[in-house]
Amino acid sequence: MDEPIFKTVAVIGTGVLGGSIGLAVKAADERITVIGIGRRKSTLERAIKAEAIDDTTLDTAKGVSQADIVILAIPISAYEKHLLNMRDALPRNAVVTDVGSTKAIVVKLAQNILGKDGPFVGSHPMAGSERRGVEFARADLFNGATCIVTPTQHTKASCLKRVVKFWKMLGANVVRLSPLEHDKAVAYVSHLPHILAALIIACQNNKHIKLAGKGFIDTTRVASGSPDMWREIILTNRKAILSAIDQADEQLMYLRDLIEAGDGEGIEQYLARAKTRRDALIAKQLKHLD
Amino acid sequence: MDEPIFKTVAVIGTGVLGGSIGLAVKAADERITVIGIGRRKSTLERAIKAEAIDDTTLDTAKGVSQADIVILAIPISAYEKHLLNMRDALPRNAVVTDVGSTKAIVVKLAQNILGKDGPFVGSHPMAGSERRGVEFARADLFNGATCIVTPTQHTKASCLKRVVKFWKMLGANVVRLSPLEHDKAVAYVSHLPHILAALIIACQNNKHIKLAGKGFIDTTRVASGSPDMWREIILTNRKAILSAIDQADEQLMYLRDLIEAGDGEGIEQYLARAKTRRDALIAKQLKHLD
Repeated sequence: MDEPIFKTVAVIGTGVLGGSIGLAVKAADERITVIGIGRRKSTLERAIKAEAIDDTTLDTAKGVSQADIVILAIPISAYEKHLLNMRDALPRNAVVTDVGSTKAIVVKLAQNILGKDGPFVGSHPMAGSERRGVEFARADLFNGATCIVTPTQHTKASCLKRVVKFWKMLGANVVRLSPLEHDKAVAYVSHLPHILAALIIACQNNKHIKLAGKGFIDTTRVASGSPDMWREIILTNRKAILSAIDQADEQLMYLRDLIEAGDGEGIEQYLARAKTRRDALIAKQLKHLD
Repeated sequence: MDEPIFKTVAVIGTGVLGGSIGLAVKAADERITVIGIGRRKSTLERAIKAEAIDDTTLDTAKGVSQADIVILAIPISAYEKHLLNMRDALPRNAVVTDVGSTKAIVVKLAQNILGKDGPFVGSHPMAGSERRGVEFARADLFNGATCIVTPTQHTKASCLKRVVKFWKMLGANVVRLSPLEHDKAVAYVSHLPHILAALIIACQNNKHIKLAGKGFIDTTRVASGSPDMWREIILTNRKAILSAIDQADEQLMYLRDLIEAGDGEGIEQYLARAKTRRDALIAKQLKHLD
């Protein structure tokens, strides 16, 4: 067997995402050491118990000092502190990435602290959980998932290459977009569905919600996600999300007109087009997982 | 063991819902005979093969002539024909119900044909599948699901009682609403989520939809349902659905304002309230299934 590309991986944050990274790394190559960095000893101990990490530290500088790759798996509001703490401790060839759901603000912040052509390359694996905590971490969370990697014109090819290799090692399907392209795309494909899931619940009175079936439960699943995390995602991607909302409003008014007019043909065509596109998406994803 | 309450059950339509009724009836009491009524021999044969029904006929009058209960599990547009065909063939004590997603139009139609105080009591089990065909039928589809039963002021207590007993036998949690109350409630808790799931897909361009993750797949699951069936549901519940859409539009504009203003506190509260209500709903449903 070849030498592993990464000998030591440092994960900052050992919740459901950081924990899943640890489990996935160890499943990919058990010779890799995973160091968990966090601010609470008890959280890190839970990650050790879940066998998601091998070693722990509360000290970011110490934790990254041997790492080939560092992954930020914490709320965006905590990035600055950790980036500042790791700046002078990172090994020369280490790369730094993250799992944050918005990228323009994050990449700018990391470039300011670690250098425009520094070791940071933003990532956003399109996989997650509405649950919190390492107990919900899964070794296969990224397997078959899309991971968007967001280099800029200043990103060194060698850094990009290593971050792409990392996600591929975990089974992800890597897509490259600029940070701004990323933010626009996820406003539509991730943030808008999240907002509409919460909105669907807000539209129910207490009598109606009691009648909810499995369709309702699935349609609103993402709305059980962490409100403070999603507050941050929305606030760091406002402009793109407002465009997506305006698009949704246009579609809603279009559908309203069809329904008010009793245009059965138009309604069926609208629903059929949605079905066709979703079914094609699923067929493709299933194929990818084969 | 007591005599079964129902000795013979006739199911009109043996797709995923009719098939699941057959499987569930036989799982509840194997002494019950299930007769499948349909218009295609091949469909009925698939249901026999799936062991969802014991016997088949293409003749509605013949199929219902021995039945203690008849369940319409077909598109609403096909109700009239079958109700007319069964009218003079129904045994004296038989009850008739259905699984249709709207009730005011259906109950009125059935009352017109079978009599205002006749044997029809509308039902709507809040369980289903976006898949079609008896191959996706499940014996436990109704177990723990809510089933809305919709008597009117003319419904005989004995008929209502037997329809309620039927759904309870399949494990459903029965709720009684008037046909109009039902239609209003499901416009919010079922039809609006369906419409918004299709809308979410319509908002994506071809580049964005490729990035879809599991959240997107779940949020839009119901949009893979049958477009012609949903066309019918929407057209038979237009007024209530338009109210639900107007409510959704108000909520969308409220959220838009919060996001445009960068009101983090307001956004988090909105999301937190949705999460709390969904989590409570799930806790309750899980408890019910215990």
